Amino acid sequence: MSSVSPKDLRDKRLSPNEIRRLTTSNPPFDVAALAHWVDRDCHETRKELREFLKDELFVGRYHDSLSDMRTLATKRLRKLCEVPGRFISVHDFETDPRRVFAVHELTCLVDGSFATKVTVQFNLFGGTVLKLGTDRHHSILTKIDGVQEIGSFALTELGYGNNAVKLETTATYDSATQEFVINTPTPLAQKYWITNGAIDAHWSVVFAQTYVNNKNEGVQAFLVRIRDSNLKVCPGCTIEDMGRKCGQNGVDNAKLAFRNVRVPREMMLNRVANVNEQGKFVSDISSARGRFIAALNQLLSGRLCLSSKGVGRAKQALTIAIRYAQTRLCVGESGESDTPILDYQLQERALMPLLARTYAVSCVGMTYVKNRFAEETTANGSRGMGKLSAETEVLCSGIKSLNCWHAKNVAIVCRERCGGQGYLAANKFEEMIGDGMAIETAEGDSSVLMMKVAKERLAWAEKTKGFEPGRTEFVGFRDLMNPEFLLWLFRRREHLMLVQLQGIMDRDIKIGGFSWFETWQMRVSDQVQALAKAYIERVCLEQFLSEASKNPKIGFVLERLAVLFAVDVVNSEIGWFLTNGVISLEQGAKVSEVLRELCGKGRYGIAPWAVHLVNAFSIPEHLLPPAARDWVRYNEVNNEGELRNVAF
Amino acid sequence: MSSVSPKDLRDKRLSPNEIRRLTTSNPPFDVAALAHWVDRDCHETRKELREFLKDELFVGRYHDSLSDMRTLATKRLRKLCEVPGRFISVHDFETDPRRVFAVHELTCLVDGSFATKVTVQFNLFGGTVLKLGTDRHHSILTKIDGVQEIGSFALTELGYGNNAVKLETTATYDSATQEFVINTPTPLAQKYWITNGAIDAHWSVVFAQTYVNNKNEGVQAFLVRIRDSNLKVCPGCTIEDMGRKCGQNGVDNAKLAFRNVRVPREMMLNRVANVNEQGKFVSDISSARGRFIAALNQLLSGRLCLSSKGVGRAKQALTIAIRYAQTRLCVGESGESDTPILDYQLQERALMPLLARTYAVSCVGMTYVKNRFAEETTANGSRGMGKLSAETEVLCSGIKSLNCWHAKNVAIVCRERCGGQGYLAANKFEEMIGDGMAIETAEGDSSVLMMKVAKERLAWAEKTKGFEPGRTEFVGFRDLMNPEFLLWLFRRREHLMLVQLQGIMDRDIKIGGFSWFETWQMRVSDQVQALAKAYIERVCLEQFLSEASKNPKIGFVLERLAVLFAVDVVNSEIGWFLTNGVISLEQGAKVSEVLRELCGKGRYGIAPWAVHLVNAFSIPEHLLPPAARDWVRYNEVNNEGELRNVAF
Repeated sequence: MSSVSPKDLRDKRLSPNEIRRLTTSNPPFDVAALAHWVDRDCHETRKELREFLKDELFVGRYHDSLSDMRTLATKRLRKLCEVPGRFISVHDFETDPRRVFAVHELTCLVDGSFATKVTVQFNLFGGTVLKLGTDRHHSILTKIDGVQEIGSFALTELGYGNNAVKLETTATYDSATQEFVINTPTPLAQKYWITNGAIDAHWSVVFAQTYVNNKNEGVQAFLVRIRDSNLKVCPGCTIEDMGRKCGQNGVDNAKLAFRNVRVPREMMLNRVANVNEQGKFVSDISSARGRFIAALNQLLSGRLCLSSKGVGRAKQALTIAIRYAQTRLCVGESGESDTPILDYQLQERALMPLLARTYAVSCVGMTYVKNRFAEETTANGSRGMGKLSAETEVLCSGIKSLNCWHAKNVAIVCRERCGGQGYLAANKFEEMIGDGMAIETAEGDSSVLMMKVAKERLAWAEKTKGFEPGRTEFVGFRDLMNPEFLLWLFRRREHLMLVQLQGIMDRDIKIGGFSWFETWQMRVSDQVQALAKAYIERVCLEQFLSEASKNPKIGFVLERLAVLFAVDVVNSEIGWFLTNGVISLEQGAKVSEVLRELCGKGRYGIAPWAVHLVNAFSIPEHLLPPAARDWVRYNEVNNEGELRNVAF
Repeated sequence: MSSVSPKDLRDKRLSPNEIRRLTTSNPPFDVAALAHWVDRDCHETRKELREFLKDELFVGRYHDSLSDMRTLATKRLRKLCEVPGRFISVHDFETDPRRVFAVHELTCLVDGSFATKVTVQFNLFGGTVLKLGTDRHHSILTKIDGVQEIGSFALTELGYGNNAVKLETTATYDSATQEFVINTPTPLAQKYWITNGAIDAHWSVVFAQTYVNNKNEGVQAFLVRIRDSNLKVCPGCTIEDMGRKCGQNGVDNAKLAFRNVRVPREMMLNRVANVNEQGKFVSDISSARGRFIAALNQLLSGRLCLSSKGVGRAKQALTIAIRYAQTRLCVGESGESDTPILDYQLQERALMPLLARTYAVSCVGMTYVKNRFAEETTANGSRGMGKLSAETEVLCSGIKSLNCWHAKNVAIVCRERCGGQGYLAANKFEEMIGDGMAIETAEGDSSVLMMKVAKERLAWAEKTKGFEPGRTEFVGFRDLMNPEFLLWLFRRREHLMLVQLQGIMDRDIKIGGFSWFETWQMRVSDQVQALAKAYIERVCLEQFLSEASKNPKIGFVLERLAVLFAVDVVNSEIGWFLTNGVISLEQGAKVSEVLRELCGKGRYGIAPWAVHLVNAFSIPEHLLPPAARDWVRYNEVNNEGELRNVAF
């Protein structure tokens, strides 16, 4: 990699920036073209926003109190929306929701709390009012865009984070006054984790079991005023601050409870169902569960918001770790500290597979799903209300799980690979790990979402008895660097896993006498998770190779990354591939060697490209911490672990 | 597991404590006996300390500023030492160092910052003065025990965390005044991450390149006054606060720099080498590197201190996650929330292997190494100075790596399995994850320690050409639940990995023409890490099975846990076992099934014991957070995320 000798690095006392300059080889591909491909959509918005985030309000701060962190996150949200709609608007869901996702991907680079405030204001609150509400609710949207009105989203309850349809909050229709009366009957029914709840929110979209004429019509959503314009809490509302968390401490989460809070009839968000002036409950969907699912499906955008944050964070973490590794010297052949740790195989083996997976899952897979989501929801003038295909629904859940897990994992591994520098809060891994944990279990525990993915795949297989690529044997060159062979391995894995899971389910239910529930939850959990993962990963690889063939300028880079991604997956599940006879023992014995080759500095290795590959993520310098820049200079002064007023 | 029906759980609105009581089956083994076995040493100290930690000073606090967190950690340290030597003394190293480790294991349950303050005061500072110093330095030990004098340990430098022998700080002997003059020549030479540095420390043990009569005699340690008794920084010392970190924010880490700081000749810690009154450098060890290694070997206790913190935290995290899972209800067969999530296979598969590994690595392996360390350092009246055998040295490093990684991993998985409750800081996962990251790269990046382990094993193999258990084929019942077979698999793995690594090294060096350094650092990193892990895991399993046979009352529990630990390891490296022909494809296909069986509720499964198995860790109620107790009651009031004044 290096065009300078260890002796130079040792004797010349170069700064990290100088080392970086001297050890960055000429890229063998067009980095700008790759960067353009990585961004993919909303190029103008991204470019402007990156520049906008230079404002000193977005400089990281690390000594703030809980209260100051919250004030800052709100300030950042307001600053972003100073010119309403400039970067993000609720109406983006009607025109191009990818704009919302792009803003998530970039704002999270500043601070996860800020990005979460964006999600809740524009997606969970604004988006829900847009999508579950009707004209009579939409007058508020302009004020949401300008943050004159701040909202919250109250679905989850303490006892029902994992079974929302059974939540306990009630909304009882009083026909005499044409109002709903909202109540929290038990401690378990408290609305829990409500972002913007503790301080900022004027409004809350409250989900409640809805009783009309003594009949439970299932869960409906209501637009409820919880604070007046002076932020005084409205009568009947109890709001309690949830305090400190594993991360995102700029977010003011709260518990909410209601006691006879009266809401006008018109405040029910009535796209899916309505109570008319005559006090009659009406809906096109007959079952309560059906209505709930229809409502929740409008909220799938939330998974893509979280996933976008994961994408941003994974790119940022790898940029920091790889740039640091390029300038951090360690013991070399001479015994002196003259060798960048990026040269060590330990570092390569930890970071290169993560880099390839970021391209596969966070760039390619995520873009594919975002595009499907955008096309389907805005198709034929449906203005954000277009119905999603079953497969897109499943892909939203699956890509959310893989991206959020990946973001957490990347942050944790990169932190470890940066050693002590990684432990300083100012180097951002603390935030990134906190964000990773927040998103992996928000909007559905990712493992539970994977169950839904697998369930849908089984249902799909039941319905379509047609041709399935993984069903037939591979004819071609069974080489571990042959992309076609790798894609076949992925298809084969998915196909066999599906057939095997079906088989076990059939056996356990029909012969074993187990209920579907018992089989699914207590007997096949491993297989369910594995199938869902196999499916989403197959989609990612398929799209990745297709992208490689469509982009001749950078195709060879994309293909190499796709191959590394695939071989890494095969390596991590080699036992399955071997015991299912998909690859031979002889070939299996070579997998780890091929993986090392792909991670290395040789003919097929991506290590010499690593710096260029993270540069193509386009994380701007002002959103990179000292470890990724001149960390020696940062440490030459009394920085107190803060960034302000310290040059680096 | 449950003796109550889902309907009862659904209808009776039981509190978590009631659910816990009703769903805890009678243990099929003596939990008290198991708990006694788990504690293993220092029973009286442990018992007293657990009780002592009930003091309200040790109640978790989550809204504190950086400054308050630091004050609190120091207060806790002082409280612990109110009666000097009651729980911990520097002299414990002379009599029974296991007492130091036991105190680490328990204090970390309160707060990792507090425990780190204990480590630095008693091990890194006090222990170093004891072990590298001589009588003339030991008068301070009493004041260390009573925390009248607080110390720090300044080895690591910004540029040389990974290559300490090349650190740049200088100590130049001035024979005219019989003083050493200490200097920090460059920014990279700043002492970095110095605990107690920013606020508390009066003293620092400073390591420096030592020049006597213009000759560099290598790195020596000096007892340097850095603050006077009023905590005013001494002339020539620059101390800069490092600010906020990924965790342990109660620790006041600092950067230290020296400018012509003069230290009397007698303040050189002179057990290994000395400068005599005539100004002559004298040592029994001729090479500078040899002296440095001799000095560092006295510091191996530090790895066991860190590892002990990992042990405490792993036990605590699993206790919280399993107790929470027992009382957290989720959707059952009925669709209602009436099934404890502990019943789900997803939860079992995530938590049971971690539980078994905690027993194997954190209980058995750690105890084995601690006992060897204690015996060898105190043997034959050596009063803490006994020389460690090469194998014990290696075991100290290896067990540190496995335990610290395990602690981090356990905390991260348990956090995820606790969902939203896991994200609340008051439920302690934030601290535990922060601690895990601190210890995995402190006192040597764990991966780098593993390299040392592998290197020693290769050297050992070179020396001893004798019989090695893994060398011969297994004769017996090749069943995946047969402990003897599993132990053979571990031995076989270690043996083959060693032989293979030797082979590659030979080929690359002798035939390939690569240097030893290049081969080791750039070509065989995966194999090096794998061998080290195989070795330490083999030792753990060997000891575990030996313990099972020696403890008839609880032997069947220990054996079952050992089997699960072993099968989980085989499963995670199944590709290696298959491609090396150690197990057949047919048998390999059964591994995951056996693993599920062992994690489950059937005849061979440990799931029904899970609650008893964590109870045997003896984490006292007052050191368990709401999630492990009555988390509903905790949430019935306005707790603001704090524990004080909230009953639960």
